[in-house]
Amino acid sequence: MTTARTPIQELESRFERLSKIGDAAGILQWDMATNMPMGGGVARAGQLSVLKVLGHEILCDPALADFLDAAEADRGLDPWQQANLAGMGRRRARAVAVDADLVRRLSEAGSACELLWRAAKDKADFAMITPALTEVRDLVAERAVALGDALGLDPYDALLDGFEPGGRAAAIAPVFDDLALFLPGFTDDVLARQAAAGPPLDLPGPFAIDAQRKLCRSMMEVVGFDFTHGRLDESHHPFCGGVPEDIRITTRYSGDDFMPGLMGVLHETGHALYEQGLPVDWRHQPVGAARGMALHESQSLMIEMQACRSAEFIAFAAPRMREAFGASGPAWEVDNIHRHYTRVARGFIRVDADEVTYPMHVIMRFRLERAMLAGDLAVKELPGAWAEETRALLGLTPADDAEGCLQDIHWYDGAWGYFPTYTLGALAAAQLFAAATEARPGIADGLAAGDFTPLVGWLRENVHQKASLMSTDELMAEATGRPLTTEPFKVHLAARYLA
Amino acid sequence: MTTARTPIQELESRFERLSKIGDAAGILQWDMATNMPMGGGVARAGQLSVLKVLGHEILCDPALADFLDAAEADRGLDPWQQANLAGMGRRRARAVAVDADLVRRLSEAGSACELLWRAAKDKADFAMITPALTEVRDLVAERAVALGDALGLDPYDALLDGFEPGGRAAAIAPVFDDLALFLPGFTDDVLARQAAAGPPLDLPGPFAIDAQRKLCRSMMEVVGFDFTHGRLDESHHPFCGGVPEDIRITTRYSGDDFMPGLMGVLHETGHALYEQGLPVDWRHQPVGAARGMALHESQSLMIEMQACRSAEFIAFAAPRMREAFGASGPAWEVDNIHRHYTRVARGFIRVDADEVTYPMHVIMRFRLERAMLAGDLAVKELPGAWAEETRALLGLTPADDAEGCLQDIHWYDGAWGYFPTYTLGALAAAQLFAAATEARPGIADGLAAGDFTPLVGWLRENVHQKASLMSTDELMAEATGRPLTTEPFKVHLAARYLA
Repeated sequence: MTTARTPIQELESRFERLSKIGDAAGILQWDMATNMPMGGGVARAGQLSVLKVLGHEILCDPALADFLDAAEADRGLDPWQQANLAGMGRRRARAVAVDADLVRRLSEAGSACELLWRAAKDKADFAMITPALTEVRDLVAERAVALGDALGLDPYDALLDGFEPGGRAAAIAPVFDDLALFLPGFTDDVLARQAAAGPPLDLPGPFAIDAQRKLCRSMMEVVGFDFTHGRLDESHHPFCGGVPEDIRITTRYSGDDFMPGLMGVLHETGHALYEQGLPVDWRHQPVGAARGMALHESQSLMIEMQACRSAEFIAFAAPRMREAFGASGPAWEVDNIHRHYTRVARGFIRVDADEVTYPMHVIMRFRLERAMLAGDLAVKELPGAWAEETRALLGLTPADDAEGCLQDIHWYDGAWGYFPTYTLGALAAAQLFAAATEARPGIADGLAAGDFTPLVGWLRENVHQKASLMSTDELMAEATGRPLTTEPFKVHLAARYLA
Repeated sequence: MTTARTPIQELESRFERLSKIGDAAGILQWDMATNMPMGGGVARAGQLSVLKVLGHEILCDPALADFLDAAEADRGLDPWQQANLAGMGRRRARAVAVDADLVRRLSEAGSACELLWRAAKDKADFAMITPALTEVRDLVAERAVALGDALGLDPYDALLDGFEPGGRAAAIAPVFDDLALFLPGFTDDVLARQAAAGPPLDLPGPFAIDAQRKLCRSMMEVVGFDFTHGRLDESHHPFCGGVPEDIRITTRYSGDDFMPGLMGVLHETGHALYEQGLPVDWRHQPVGAARGMALHESQSLMIEMQACRSAEFIAFAAPRMREAFGASGPAWEVDNIHRHYTRVARGFIRVDADEVTYPMHVIMRFRLERAMLAGDLAVKELPGAWAEETRALLGLTPADDAEGCLQDIHWYDGAWGYFPTYTLGALAAAQLFAAATEARPGIADGLAAGDFTPLVGWLRENVHQKASLMSTDELMAEATGRPLTTEPFKVHLAARYLA
């Protein structure tokens, strides 16, 4: 005899299935990036596509709407259940808003454009990809309108909302404008100060890859990564994947320079801590998932920028670096390593940028993608507009499109509305870290001693365990006493680079 | 505008989805055995369980029966489509025959019994597992009756049929009785001959694991494994998994002895060649899958036993072994290595047995599991019956149950009816190899030159490309001119061990 489920129980069961399907895909994607032989690609794409379709069918099942309606009427739901129900409704609304044919056309156009993009980037030839990108832009715009109509949002916000629920361009624009006013002058000041001090001493390689692996693993353990619930591997593009119980971090090592690989691993460890710290009771439910990409990025950036590039942590890490590579001498002193890890330079490439100049890369992309989506900027005019923004924000002129508008994959494979989350994450990281250190004075001493438990304990309580119970804005207000603002980020930069 | 699908097209589409779900599970299972951290186990079991349920739902969907009926009435189907339809019907019939509650109870009882079995084996204490194994046996019997009722088969055959479609105990029993008469005396003759010749010279280790890995990879390439469509990794229990386009072989290395690791890899490579050689046009359809476990095992055993333990291949491999380990001296001469790889010894443990004594391990298990399933042998009487069979077939008496009826996992986790496929595979390997070498005289020279293309070419054409188009019996008759028989196996053994 089976007891009939309540509507919310039925919904929970369906979303648990959906979540597990997504988890299976997560492991398969990790395998694709780390292990899969070339010839496995077509088969793997087929597996992932079926899993995606199965998930989509769960969301689009008309019966789901009935259960959602019935659960809405249930007055006995607690706040977690209510937030869960809202998250379910949001996922269904996004799934049914766009018809399957458009999804397919966009997926195909994105794949074709991405392939062509690799060649165009190699040849620094934007003209050869203009038609393909135009097609992607048009289909993205069609999707944005469809989503926007269904959700009552502007088209750009409808895309952004997929990465950052509740994110709105109208709120972001003034924040970014404020940064765009502040950062160029601030960067000048930092560069002047660095020039006066002279460059740090070189850290001469080569650095054995095995020694780098060991160092990275031991530093991940220091930060709090649980290797009984995760792994560290290698892939072309570093990422944090897998599932909360089995996190798969990847990185890339260079024999010439261990510094980016190590800091990349610590960055991904920040993502991992968020996933590993989500509430077990709500695992597999929308309310139990990470809140959005801005908060996710805040967790990785805080571990990397606020914590691991701090003078305190470098003092802890420096002897371990020397030991890992059997190195010694003045270049390996704490102060010199710290100067490397806080070096600022204006450059063309976003992914190589430091924390001071990074937001300017993001701000120009945010402006340009909004303009293209709105039809105010034609795709073929992108290189000119890109060069103009680069001059205005970074004072540089790209020599060609490879170091200009061809550098990032995002637009070419259809990911529009993602860029702003990087900088929202940087702002949130600074603000959360400031609140954490105020609430728990032991955090800085902890970093100096290789003890991350004070910091991670605060994050667990104030961020990780909240999952998707409230909006990003509400979470920030509750955790830090105020809405997201640029001030703590500016204070952080000033303290680190001009103090 | 969508063109309506014919029933067979609709069925193909549904079974393609089913196949891709199974493929996703295949990669996840490989990852579980090779990469997954301990703490990922519960989450992974959840993912695999959802994929299994999704597949089960596809098979049990009432609409599937309607499409099967409609397709049956289609007079325009070609032989591949007809065989495909039969395979679809068979899969559905097996899925709907057993109710979900029994499946769940059996799965739970099997998992619990398997756990307890590990402890019982460590303690060589069959009594502590008798109740758990009795429960598994009873549930397996219940399942066998349900399947048998639905399929019109005896209960044991209904289980066997799941591993070896068309396999029937009544046909296997006389074949095994024939071997049981032949092998004990033959083994005596081989052992007498070996004793007269004295033991081979030791091949002294240690053997660096990295050198073993390289040797295994290069030998896999010699046999014809395509590393753009597969990998070699390590796991506790060697297996061949993954999907045809992305085969995942695993092995286990010992620093003291490279020989079992290498031959294990070549065995799994035989399985891989079968999967990699299946017809691409029927990929994802029942008719495009491997025919059954007997033929699968015939492919791995033929590559291992007939091909790679041959004097011809050892002559090719010996210099490569010497080079791999920087070894030299009389122990590393071809003849001495070949004597190692054809060493016969009576022993208690099936998985360590050579090709001469292996069938006796299988025959006794086949007899015992049939007797237990029929109720002619109570579970608690198993140790006594086991010891009796071991004395009769191998002339040995196990000292305890750890080297007796506790050695194999199969019965404890619910896999009844599987054992006979090992020896059916050994017989098929000998018979197919004899036919191949008769049809293509260049095969032996090829092995001596490290050129497997004559052998694999014949297998592709006569076995791999046939997939599940016909029954195992029909395939054997078409490929070798006669039904499966023991004679080529006896001829193979006589030529190798007594010539």
